Amino acid sequence: MSIPTITRPPADLVERVRQVGAATASATLAHMGLRNCFITGPVSWNKGKVVAGPAVTLQCMPKREDMLDEGEYADVEKQLHRHVLYQVEKGDMVVVDGRGDMTSGIFGDMMSTYFKGRGGAGMVIDGCVRDWGKIKKLDIPMWLRGVTPNYHAQTNIMPFAVNVTIACGGVTVVPGDIILADDDGAVCVPVALAEAMIEKAHKDHGWEQFSKMKLLQGESLQRYYPLHQDARPEYEEWLKQDPSK
Amino acid sequence: MSIPTITRPPADLVERVRQVGAATASATLAHMGLRNCFITGPVSWNKGKVVAGPAVTLQCMPKREDMLDEGEYADVEKQLHRHVLYQVEKGDMVVVDGRGDMTSGIFGDMMSTYFKGRGGAGMVIDGCVRDWGKIKKLDIPMWLRGVTPNYHAQTNIMPFAVNVTIACGGVTVVPGDIILADDDGAVCVPVALAEAMIEKAHKDHGWEQFSKMKLLQGESLQRYYPLHQDARPEYEEWLKQDPSK
Amino acid sequence: MSIPTITRPPADLVERVRQVGAATASATLAHMGLRNCFITGPVSWNKGKVVAGPAVTLQCMPKREDMLDEGEYADVEKQLHRHVLYQVEKGDMVVVDGRGDMTSGIFGDMMSTYFKGRGGAGMVIDGCVRDWGKIKKLDIPMWLRGVTPNYHAQTNIMPFAVNVTIACGGVTVVPGDIILADDDGAVCVPVALAEAMIEKAHKDHGWEQFSKMKLLQGESLQRYYPLHQDARPEYEEWLKQDPSK
Amino acid sequence: MSIPTITRPPADLVERVRQVGAATASATLAHMGLRNCFITGPVSWNKGKVVAGPAVTLQCMPKREDMLDEGEYADVEKQLHRHVLYQVEKGDMVVVDGRGDMTSGIFGDMMSTYFKGRGGAGMVIDGCVRDWGKIKKLDIPMWLRGVTPNYHAQTNIMPFAVNVTIACGGVTVVPGDIILADDDGAVCVPVALAEAMIEKAHKDHGWEQFSKMKLLQGESLQRYYPLHQDARPEYEEWLKQDPSK
Amino acid sequence: MSIPTITRPPADLVERVRQVGAATASATLAHMGLRNCFITGPVSWNKGKVVAGPAVTLQCMPKREDMLDEGEYADVEKQLHRHVLYQVEKGDMVVVDGRGDMTSGIFGDMMSTYFKGRGGAGMVIDGCVRDWGKIKKLDIPMWLRGVTPNYHAQTNIMPFAVNVTIACGGVTVVPGDIILADDDGAVCVPVALAEAMIEKAHKDHGWEQFSKMKLLQGESLQRYYPLHQDARPEYEEWLKQDPSK
Amino acid sequence: MSIPTITRPPADLVERVRQVGAATASATLAHMGLRNCFITGPVSWNKGKVVAGPAVTLQCMPKREDMLDEGEYADVEKQLHRHVLYQVEKGDMVVVDGRGDMTSGIFGDMMSTYFKGRGGAGMVIDGCVRDWGKIKKLDIPMWLRGVTPNYHAQTNIMPFAVNVTIACGGVTVVPGDIILADDDGAVCVPVALAEAMIEKAHKDHGWEQFSKMKLLQGESLQRYYPLHQDARPEYEEWLKQDPSK
Repeated sequence: MSIPTITRPPADLVERVRQVGAATASATLAHMGLRNCFITGPVSWNKGKVVAGPAVTLQCMPKREDMLDEGEYADVEKQLHRHVLYQVEKGDMVVVDGRGDMTSGIFGDMMSTYFKGRGGAGMVIDGCVRDWGKIKKLDIPMWLRGVTPNYHAQTNIMPFAVNVTIACGGVTVVPGDIILADDDGAVCVPVALAEAMIEKAHKDHGWEQFSKMKLLQGESLQRYYPLHQDARPEYEEWLKQDPSK
Repeated sequence: MSIPTITRPPADLVERVRQVGAATASATLAHMGLRNCFITGPVSWNKGKVVAGPAVTLQCMPKREDMLDEGEYADVEKQLHRHVLYQVEKGDMVVVDGRGDMTSGIFGDMMSTYFKGRGGAGMVIDGCVRDWGKIKKLDIPMWLRGVTPNYHAQTNIMPFAVNVTIACGGVTVVPGDIILADDDGAVCVPVALAEAMIEKAHKDHGWEQFSKMKLLQGESLQRYYPLHQDARPEYEEWLKQDPSK
Repeated sequence: MSIPTITRPPADLVERVRQVGAATASATLAHMGLRNCFITGPVSWNKGKVVAGPAVTLQCMPKREDMLDEGEYADVEKQLHRHVLYQVEKGDMVVVDGRGDMTSGIFGDMMSTYFKGRGGAGMVIDGCVRDWGKIKKLDIPMWLRGVTPNYHAQTNIMPFAVNVTIACGGVTVVPGDIILADDDGAVCVPVALAEAMIEKAHKDHGWEQFSKMKLLQGESLQRYYPLHQDARPEYEEWLKQDPSK
Repeated sequence: MSIPTITRPPADLVERVRQVGAATASATLAHMGLRNCFITGPVSWNKGKVVAGPAVTLQCMPKREDMLDEGEYADVEKQLHRHVLYQVEKGDMVVVDGRGDMTSGIFGDMMSTYFKGRGGAGMVIDGCVRDWGKIKKLDIPMWLRGVTPNYHAQTNIMPFAVNVTIACGGVTVVPGDIILADDDGAVCVPVALAEAMIEKAHKDHGWEQFSKMKLLQGESLQRYYPLHQDARPEYEEWLKQDPSK
Repeated sequence: MSIPTITRPPADLVERVRQVGAATASATLAHMGLRNCFITGPVSWNKGKVVAGPAVTLQCMPKREDMLDEGEYADVEKQLHRHVLYQVEKGDMVVVDGRGDMTSGIFGDMMSTYFKGRGGAGMVIDGCVRDWGKIKKLDIPMWLRGVTPNYHAQTNIMPFAVNVTIACGGVTVVPGDIILADDDGAVCVPVALAEAMIEKAHKDHGWEQFSKMKLLQGESLQRYYPLHQDARPEYEEWLKQDPSK
Repeated sequence: MSIPTITRPPADLVERVRQVGAATASATLAHMGLRNCFITGPVSWNKGKVVAGPAVTLQCMPKREDMLDEGEYADVEKQLHRHVLYQVEKGDMVVVDGRGDMTSGIFGDMMSTYFKGRGGAGMVIDGCVRDWGKIKKLDIPMWLRGVTPNYHAQTNIMPFAVNVTIACGGVTVVPGDIILADDDGAVCVPVALAEAMIEKAHKDHGWEQFSKMKLLQGESLQRYYPLHQDARPEYEEWLKQDPSK
């Protein structure tokens, strides 16, 4: 079994992508020509997390009994959902094309525990996990379609390849892409566009904290969102009062 | 741009509708001939709220690039999702036909902040919002299909008209209709039927607190739900003991 | 109206099934030849519950006005969603084929209160309940597709039969089958297979607590999951240190 | 195995229902209070047929390996899709709740040939048949969701009961109901409502041939559809010219 | 009742759009910036037609019993599906947002006959018609989701507005837009883009007949599709031999 | 661009698979342990064809603008839907994972013409083609989800890889697998199982022509399907009368 290794982006770049947040990243990439980088379907199962990391990928395919050596007497080392975890390094995001299947739990408590032991950052699965009652206590950031008691190859699908380009929730994910996920969901940030995205995001949205304060006071949307040039001096004045903003 | 203004029902009527609750309102309207007034799809994203208010509406349509002047250099005042918020008065419910789209965030943090600043009562969106990590802190009662990082016109839809009659979650909503929403979901109460609905609801369900107490003690469903005439004296006795009930 | 009575499995058997948990039960039954016993669709609405009980069933069918005597002046005792609750004994699970309908609330606050008064263990409904704001306070373990303000026969479906074999979430459920449900969802355990399932589950998974401890420390997945024969002495040593495990 | 026998309506009544046609029957029943008797999903696979007959029903359920004795060495007489055909008499309609499954062919060439040999009138299947290349040559009127090479219990479902009340395409069908099907699809006409439906249909639609002739000439829709009282003398004059109309 | 009148494009322009065909029109508009003008869902029910005409529109909305005066004793002139046909002039295309509903037949035999009498060019309905057995004999070009015996307002929807901008099959259609439909389906060509689309289509695809001849002989795809500049002299030679091409 | 070449099974084996037919092949493989080899979704668009051939595959993925060099000025030789056709040899079946997309026409008239020029046997596409009005005249056996005027990369997807293992209609297809398709749909026959499948199919179904004749005469299903041992002498007698059967 030959698993491709991935090229990871610099940790500093990943962290700066993380700070942008999914909403601003997705919108900024759209204005840069990437119509949709939002992985639709998987939703946050432990709200409040904001994580980013390089994508380590697992591709599932429709189950074919002549290609799957599953069962209690089979060699477990042939199971590819194990091998994707063997690839995980500290800070990685595991991204799984689970084909949206609601009757296959890609990982359970034991595999998730192993993932946590390896220092993985989080998981985005277009499908389900099992053992949720136990997994939730591990507090691993997870974006899922749902949960199920069934195991990974019990009904319709089987793990098929690790670290290949996959489709996940309507987005093509290349191993090594930066996956950024928060309460809004997960987005895929191509490494080659990451720096430009960060720069553009800061330019377009730097004044939002100031504007939000104004809007909450019932002030004019026209003046403060987006920041009108007439209000820019006011904003700069406000900034000066506390440069830490 | 000419936006129709809406006729708002009396605040007192709205409040009395609110006190009925979505379940009793929906069932009562059904017995009055309105088969279904339940807006199916959007669900409560901050449980425990019970709100009512006149509908201010936004209609989205499939995106057509020749009809949409979107983008960073466009005139933001042409964006109709702003104009629906300009229409909001204290106590209003914003209702959006977001076409069930899961890749468009109709409003984000800034727009929601502005909505809160104007005193809006809540939002019912057959679609998504973005910036949920921030919006949830605003504690605006919201019934949504989901959340997304994408902005309002990023992929498939565009805001098209404000304060026109819309379809939302399988229900036709006329601007000014009373929207009543709680943990069960949102219902649309036509103003012309509101008084009759309230009266009928009180007649049919006034004894429920008494009956519930009995059922919790394992008493007969036949006797207490609906309240049998044989049990009515018992109920009236109970009422007398504490007229505040 | 003639309602079949069900044969309930011994309470001790039910309790031992409960202790297995849904994930291990489903996987073990799969290895015994039952491809899927997971009731797909209904999800836990009050996380953290682990319950089991014999199935008391309610079948809904598409509404046919010539077969339904519904309405405010109708004889409520003809309503079969009442009769399924009359069948409930302490510890029973009510399982409803609600046809996945999102606009019918099979039970409301009053019926749920009566169910709690009778000592029911929980409900699995391929459909919705209404009055969620009140029902959640009853803390009845419930697996649902959703909630709605609509009542049980308001739009598309009608209760049709009690204690017949039903399809629920893609699984055929025979009255008296053991329903086991937790955060992963609900599974149907055929009574005739229950003892063998329990035995096999214990054999296959007894060492998991030990292995999980190891994995959390970043130890080898190959060695500890599933437990390799080389690691068995280590496991047995660990066991000896505290036989209560 | 005990299969209920059905009570068949008089052949003359069935024939008069057939002559009404599905569209007029469905609309007339709606005006009589039956909101929807249209079996949605199955469509005509051999256009131009207009058939009616009493419903002989087959119910499928999700496959459960512990309840199904399928396979090449099994007793074929236990297969219920055979038994529904044993019940068929000349002029009967076989109606199958195939659960909308697109990977199960309820009947194949051999079973369909046997059905034709018994004089069956047609089939309405919320699901598929197999061997379509051969079945189409038998020219049996069939309303199907599709075709598949798979056999009846190959993947997800199993035949479960014969001549019980079933749901088919969103309509509850009682064995013995009159099924009327043409290019518009299949409708279920309750026997008890059949005479009244026929009478009302003739009253409401007798003049349509006359009106259609006028409309094709570009004449006024207001005058001729529905037939205005001012145009009734003209219609009666036309009728007199050829009483065969 | 006030129905907006539409502005029709010149008949000559409509005819030249028709000659482009749906596939080339859709692709050319996409290269001009209109991502998708294909009305997804309705398919040709009488293959081989190629028609174009200005859109006359009908919008349906979810049925609301307090807004619909339907029934056998109602004033039929209030029914808006009649009024959209009153607007039809020779060559017009009727486009209906039937909300994808499979249980409502927007038009039946009589209305379709009237449409033919008025000289309508064709219909595109995101929904169904009824009386298909009769309508097919009228040979009106129709693009539909399906057929049903049910009438226009029998179950879930009601006609709501005529000649307003509608969504149909995922495309926003403005009354007066040119609808072009053939075996591939229907596309919406904005009038303002029509001339430019025609010009560009001719430039990009004029050589296709020549290339197709070559490809059928097994010649090089690289050389003939798209036409390589090296092959252009060969094409021009071929053209000269028969300028009628 | 490096495209894997496929290993084709012997033409004689392919032809013998073809003669089995999709229904018998699918059922026989199921009895051999392959639960489902039916490619669900694509249906025959030109009925009456029975074809088989080795699979040449094309995988589509969600469109990503930074990975796609599409547009009128782009290098067409980078388009992978061209390269899959370059791989086609006489008798091959092109199988495309078009992701079920209804707004992308994988091939049009010109590409289909080229395919025919190369001697391809047929196409199975989990998606659409465009130019159907022209393609149907080429009479290429095609199994499709539908047709569209849109081109291959116009909206949501892009061709991504040629001759890799793909999922198509719920079945994993390996390049070189034998695809067998007829009016029932397409099935994937793994080469390694083909001989055993053929042998078993002949053993199980050789007597069907005889039995069908009997059933059409209204004879006993128990005796003739499957052929009962008591009827075997009768069958052998019939065979003797005409050994060509």
